[in-house]
Amino acid sequence: MEKTLALACELIRRPSVTPEDADCQALMAEHLEAIGFQCTDMPFGEVKNLWAERSGKGAERSGKGAERGSEGPIVVFAGHTDVVPTGPESQWQSPPFEPTLRDGLLYGRGAADMKGSLAAMIVACEEFVASHPEHRGRIGFLITSDEEGPAVNGTVKVVEALVDAGKAIDWCIVGEPSSTSSLGDVVKNGRRGSLGAVLTVRGIQGHIAYPHLADNPIHRALPALDALTREVWDEGNDFFPATSFQISNINGGTGATNVIPGEVEVVFNFRFSTEVTDTELRQRTETILDAHGLDYSIDWNLSGQAFLTPSGALVEAAVESIREVAGIETELSTAGGTSDGRFIAPTGTQVLELGPVNATIHKIDECVRADDLPRLAAMYRGILEKLLLD
Amino acid sequence: MEKTLALACELIRRPSVTPEDADCQALMAEHLEAIGFQCTDMPFGEVKNLWAERSGKGAERSGKGAERGSEGPIVVFAGHTDVVPTGPESQWQSPPFEPTLRDGLLYGRGAADMKGSLAAMIVACEEFVASHPEHRGRIGFLITSDEEGPAVNGTVKVVEALVDAGKAIDWCIVGEPSSTSSLGDVVKNGRRGSLGAVLTVRGIQGHIAYPHLADNPIHRALPALDALTREVWDEGNDFFPATSFQISNINGGTGATNVIPGEVEVVFNFRFSTEVTDTELRQRTETILDAHGLDYSIDWNLSGQAFLTPSGALVEAAVESIREVAGIETELSTAGGTSDGRFIAPTGTQVLELGPVNATIHKIDECVRADDLPRLAAMYRGILEKLLLD
Repeated sequence: MEKTLALACELIRRPSVTPEDADCQALMAEHLEAIGFQCTDMPFGEVKNLWAERSGKGAERSGKGAERGSEGPIVVFAGHTDVVPTGPESQWQSPPFEPTLRDGLLYGRGAADMKGSLAAMIVACEEFVASHPEHRGRIGFLITSDEEGPAVNGTVKVVEALVDAGKAIDWCIVGEPSSTSSLGDVVKNGRRGSLGAVLTVRGIQGHIAYPHLADNPIHRALPALDALTREVWDEGNDFFPATSFQISNINGGTGATNVIPGEVEVVFNFRFSTEVTDTELRQRTETILDAHGLDYSIDWNLSGQAFLTPSGALVEAAVESIREVAGIETELSTAGGTSDGRFIAPTGTQVLELGPVNATIHKIDECVRADDLPRLAAMYRGILEKLLLD
Repeated sequence: MEKTLALACELIRRPSVTPEDADCQALMAEHLEAIGFQCTDMPFGEVKNLWAERSGKGAERSGKGAERGSEGPIVVFAGHTDVVPTGPESQWQSPPFEPTLRDGLLYGRGAADMKGSLAAMIVACEEFVASHPEHRGRIGFLITSDEEGPAVNGTVKVVEALVDAGKAIDWCIVGEPSSTSSLGDVVKNGRRGSLGAVLTVRGIQGHIAYPHLADNPIHRALPALDALTREVWDEGNDFFPATSFQISNINGGTGATNVIPGEVEVVFNFRFSTEVTDTELRQRTETILDAHGLDYSIDWNLSGQAFLTPSGALVEAAVESIREVAGIETELSTAGGTSDGRFIAPTGTQVLELGPVNATIHKIDECVRADDLPRLAAMYRGILEKLLLD
């Protein structure tokens, strides 16, 4: 069996539902240490994280306890070993943790998101290091077992630790399944930010037969909320659609039909472009609420800043590598949900997401084209070659 | 002990929390049968109801199985033996089902709402019948043990049965505690109607990161709901305040903060005057919802039509009787919540509510002025005299 495919199968066989790692990271570390990476476990809470780093110039001294060189830029592969739950296993055509080849497709939970990518990253490094053991700069791996879950003790904590240790990441390739119909057709060079809030509007509770003695917070909130839905927050830009405001939950009332409630709670979320900051969104929201004379409190929660890598060495290397392997011109996109890239980009890193076709992720019968895995490894290797060879 | 007070104490001692009657009706029937009433138990479901009727002209033939006369108008006393729960008994100064006289006040659950009234009605009849055994027309009692609860198997069912039996009530005195600061200062000569609805507005559920693929039903509903709160339904009239619209409950959302929900549910209620009908309110509401292009369904629930007894023999009798007993000019009012009068008025009956001061009803340490009970009996007796003596 082709080695990328074989390694992907080994990873899929480990049932690493968030936050379980199921020894996926140990398997990856074994491969990486064999080619001169220094691996460090960085657990936080119940979440396992792996940081691995290899310096090209210092590779000859490895295994002798010598201090590694730290000069030169670093390319980091970022990803996660955890997978989402399988859903009803009986609905799968083959068991989700038994990797199965069928009609040219590799089936299994995590095949596309993102154990296939992890295997491709490792094989790319194995081949690159074999050909260029003394590459310039460094290669890193930042792997977590909690990307699909709360994502509190995963990538964000590792990045904080790296910053504390004075390590700056120059380029980061996240293995998220970015492709839509064929491998490499889309690369994500940014993501919208996500800003959430829980708004509580207060009134005065009372009997519905005596509305003059009460103050209905639902009635109060309606025009203000309507104004928020109508506000044009920005127009977006070349890379981002316009910032969107959406109410996800609204709850007010005692359950009784004859009581005017004392408060109503509204949960909403902004997905925002790089044309506004979360600070601006907070201020503009509160200005609208204030203009409606509401008695309210609001708890804000910034899930992630918007980030964008519009151009630069990493984007050029990816575009060129995809062209060489797949013969296509990739599309740069910032669409979709958040990814761990949001935690890495704020430190000034060029971040880019490149991975398999995402059509089946999180679904029953998740799968990836078997041929795509060695091709993805070749794309990753191409990026390393463009960035780390003189 | 004064006999009205004594009978009120006997009733309070029976812990008749809705829908329990705790033999209150049996006690009342015993008193009524002693003065020539024919009593009929009319239970529906777990609710006990009592219908009692006395004909003045046929009184002499009572007890002999002879057919009673049915000629002449009928004055009905309506009321309920059930009381609301006590709340924490430890907070009461004296146990809620132990009637206690303290500083001229009679304490106990139901003292004001409405066992004091029931006692006054019976004593009024006892005194009236003793003086005028051959009064014209008839006197009735319509007593339920579910006024404070769902009110489904109580007064409304008895009225239906009376209508089926061809019995029309001319005048009805409901013993609800209508007074605000002194006995008889306010008489309710009508009540607003109550029309409820559960509105479900549908959209298309989706991921909050892809709002263009979803259709947020909360956003859709906001301007329509705002329009409903701003609508002037009527201006009220001499007897009624303007019709009010209030949202009691609004619930939408999956609980997740990243999901646009598929629907939102809104519970609202009209308290309406006699200037509009429930049919008009339904039509105007749906016109507003339609104008906003909503995909919705709505379940209407008419709790009670508005009713009004603006003038007539009953109102005149009550005003005059209160003037005689208390020396005050009573105020006619339609304010406040619904009462069982809503079930009686639609058959064309003149309905009026007269009872004790309502300041403590449904509260801890519910009480009534002990002196007010014989005075209330005197008011009721005065009304009988004005309506049933030639």
